[in-house]
Amino acid sequence: MVPRSQTALLVAGGAAAGAAVMYALMRPAASTLEKPKSKGTDAAKGGPAIRFSKPKLLDFVKSCLCKAGASEANAALVADVLIYADCRGIPSHGCNRADFYAGEIGRGLIDANAVPQVVEDSGCCGVVDGKNGLGAVVSKVAIELAIAKAEAHGVGIVACRRSNHFGAAGYWAQQALDRGLIGFAFTNTAPYMVPTGGTCRAVGTNPICAYFPGEGGDCFQLDMATTTVPIGKIEIMDRLQKALPMGWGVDRHGKPCADPAEVGTGGGLCPLGGYAETAGYKGYGLGVLVELLSSALSGAAVGPDVVRWNLNRTEELNLGHCFIVMDPERFAPGVASRLASYLAKMRDLPGSVKVPGDPERAAEADAKAGGVLIQNAVAVSLKVLALEKGVDLLPELVDLDIKNRRQSIRAREK
Amino acid sequence: MVPRSQTALLVAGGAAAGAAVMYALMRPAASTLEKPKSKGTDAAKGGPAIRFSKPKLLDFVKSCLCKAGASEANAALVADVLIYADCRGIPSHGCNRADFYAGEIGRGLIDANAVPQVVEDSGCCGVVDGKNGLGAVVSKVAIELAIAKAEAHGVGIVACRRSNHFGAAGYWAQQALDRGLIGFAFTNTAPYMVPTGGTCRAVGTNPICAYFPGEGGDCFQLDMATTTVPIGKIEIMDRLQKALPMGWGVDRHGKPCADPAEVGTGGGLCPLGGYAETAGYKGYGLGVLVELLSSALSGAAVGPDVVRWNLNRTEELNLGHCFIVMDPERFAPGVASRLASYLAKMRDLPGSVKVPGDPERAAEADAKAGGVLIQNAVAVSLKVLALEKGVDLLPELVDLDIKNRRQSIRAREK
Repeated sequence: MVPRSQTALLVAGGAAAGAAVMYALMRPAASTLEKPKSKGTDAAKGGPAIRFSKPKLLDFVKSCLCKAGASEANAALVADVLIYADCRGIPSHGCNRADFYAGEIGRGLIDANAVPQVVEDSGCCGVVDGKNGLGAVVSKVAIELAIAKAEAHGVGIVACRRSNHFGAAGYWAQQALDRGLIGFAFTNTAPYMVPTGGTCRAVGTNPICAYFPGEGGDCFQLDMATTTVPIGKIEIMDRLQKALPMGWGVDRHGKPCADPAEVGTGGGLCPLGGYAETAGYKGYGLGVLVELLSSALSGAAVGPDVVRWNLNRTEELNLGHCFIVMDPERFAPGVASRLASYLAKMRDLPGSVKVPGDPERAAEADAKAGGVLIQNAVAVSLKVLALEKGVDLLPELVDLDIKNRRQSIRAREK
Repeated sequence: MVPRSQTALLVAGGAAAGAAVMYALMRPAASTLEKPKSKGTDAAKGGPAIRFSKPKLLDFVKSCLCKAGASEANAALVADVLIYADCRGIPSHGCNRADFYAGEIGRGLIDANAVPQVVEDSGCCGVVDGKNGLGAVVSKVAIELAIAKAEAHGVGIVACRRSNHFGAAGYWAQQALDRGLIGFAFTNTAPYMVPTGGTCRAVGTNPICAYFPGEGGDCFQLDMATTTVPIGKIEIMDRLQKALPMGWGVDRHGKPCADPAEVGTGGGLCPLGGYAETAGYKGYGLGVLVELLSSALSGAAVGPDVVRWNLNRTEELNLGHCFIVMDPERFAPGVASRLASYLAKMRDLPGSVKVPGDPERAAEADAKAGGVLIQNAVAVSLKVLALEKGVDLLPELVDLDIKNRRQSIRAREK
């Protein structure tokens, strides 16, 4: 994904010929808003952070999840999924979630050692019953089946039910990419989006993720929620007491709303596109499409019925996912080379044009060179988790002050 | 340009709690802007219109295209594609294009009787070389191959190159739906979208279309450009001399722009999501995804290289498409029933929530009951075409005044 600050752009737009004042009035008051942050630099800009050796961090998170009740193999997989996100500059989906997963396992909300079962397997299609296992464990079974089918038939499509959060969607598409295949990953989530014309949350942030391999190591990596922003961005704006740009959220009556507290607690997120005037119904349609791929095909819970993702729930989430893998070699010869030359052409356009995945690959290179960057607040949560579970602290955590530990919102939610 | 009431704007926004004036400044002046029209009612609201019997209109358009040089079968197919769009309330993709297609055939820009060739066919994947034939003729070969593969393996994916405009994407997904299958259709187009961070057009309006069959005749039918609006809406606003809402377009420097003339001629369309602050980079990413499915897989021209779609070009368009067909029966039993109950649940939400395809099906029912609604301006273009080609006029056209005939913008473009 290619987030980029365009506040300067909005300000510069004031030079438009004609009714300049009118245009200025129509435009969001960019100067009073916080600049949108690139995912790739969120960690760096999210306050003080600590660098960790990736192998040591993997081992440490694995140990914590093992002590919480997961098998060695399952804990290692989840640690890998989380740290993939941290390395790619998506800290919301990284180690930030380790203590919450441990809490779900500890309370028996997830069966950390469930063995997912392939319940449909026909031609290039399959369905996995996750048995309420860890989302990563369920997704691994599904993506491997989809990859095997793609290698055999050219395409594999596998849907999952009775699963849980699977981390960053990109991790699963990456499994296909690493084998030279095209990978798509979709999942539904608890509802945060208010449908166009509606007044209550009914659709998740339902991401669309697609990775395509290109020649010379280049690739296309799109991984995007179908809402304008994730709920986490609303929480941040609330903490900063900043008004939301139009198109991010609605109030409890489904009306445009700039108040992050109202959007976060009473209203909900806008679909990509914002309100109807700017085609928000398209983002809503995409969210429903992801819902159908994830739930209708598999039998998972649908958006309006998914329970809130917190530690006080009693029901299983029953999330649905869908993975599509395609073998580019089955199409016109030269897909990888055409893709690389197309992406190069886009990056060479006048202005400053990136292609989806560029910022995340830059973050990944940075993590490889200097270590995995973890925000102090997240490091504190890891330290608390390790102390609870009796896991040896990594040296970087020993002197970290945990007095100001702030539990995740989900953990606090009633 | 386009006066707009600042007072109304401030009043409309003034109710927001907190920094009311700031919020008001951020909010578009909804009350002074033209309300977005449902696709399903565009024809009805587009000025005076005439009702035609569908079979007679099909036969008439077919005759015109035959006289232009297409075979009976090819002309009948194209007429069916065009009138499908008119029936579903998408007049931009309907008979509105008949005279332009006839012009392309007449000038030898399209080989109306080319025989598309399946050049790759392996497992559930295929590629069609369209031989610069009519987009509908190429797409028919491809969707039928994809359907056959889905029936055999559960999934079929067929990409096309050397094709031309294929009409409304939904027509192709409908072929799958009519057989109880899930259908996706994608195509690239001439570039109209300015990528996030860019200053020139480089990506088409690249639609995403997905149809899913449900129990009892219900279905999900999403058919959307990955730009906020199609270029046609900018042309309409220009004709009406109205300011564009923010998020529709940019000027030639890539800056937000409310002037439809500048967006239409100098700048270009915004991706879905608008500017970067409202996640326009996601719509841009989706447009690139459609480009990869349509071009990278098939070898068609890519966005920045597609020549403008007018009658003064000398090169073939070499458009690419991609069709994906899936058999829902290969997944967890009960897909059609789960889909119908989910859609019913969405429609029952508080407020006024529709699901993608509802407005188009309403338009279709209306056309079935009362005849196909064709705007007078389009009827005029049909009459002129028939007179040129020596085709007998339908009775409804006989008295129509063609003095004020307005050639399509594409036809006039140098």
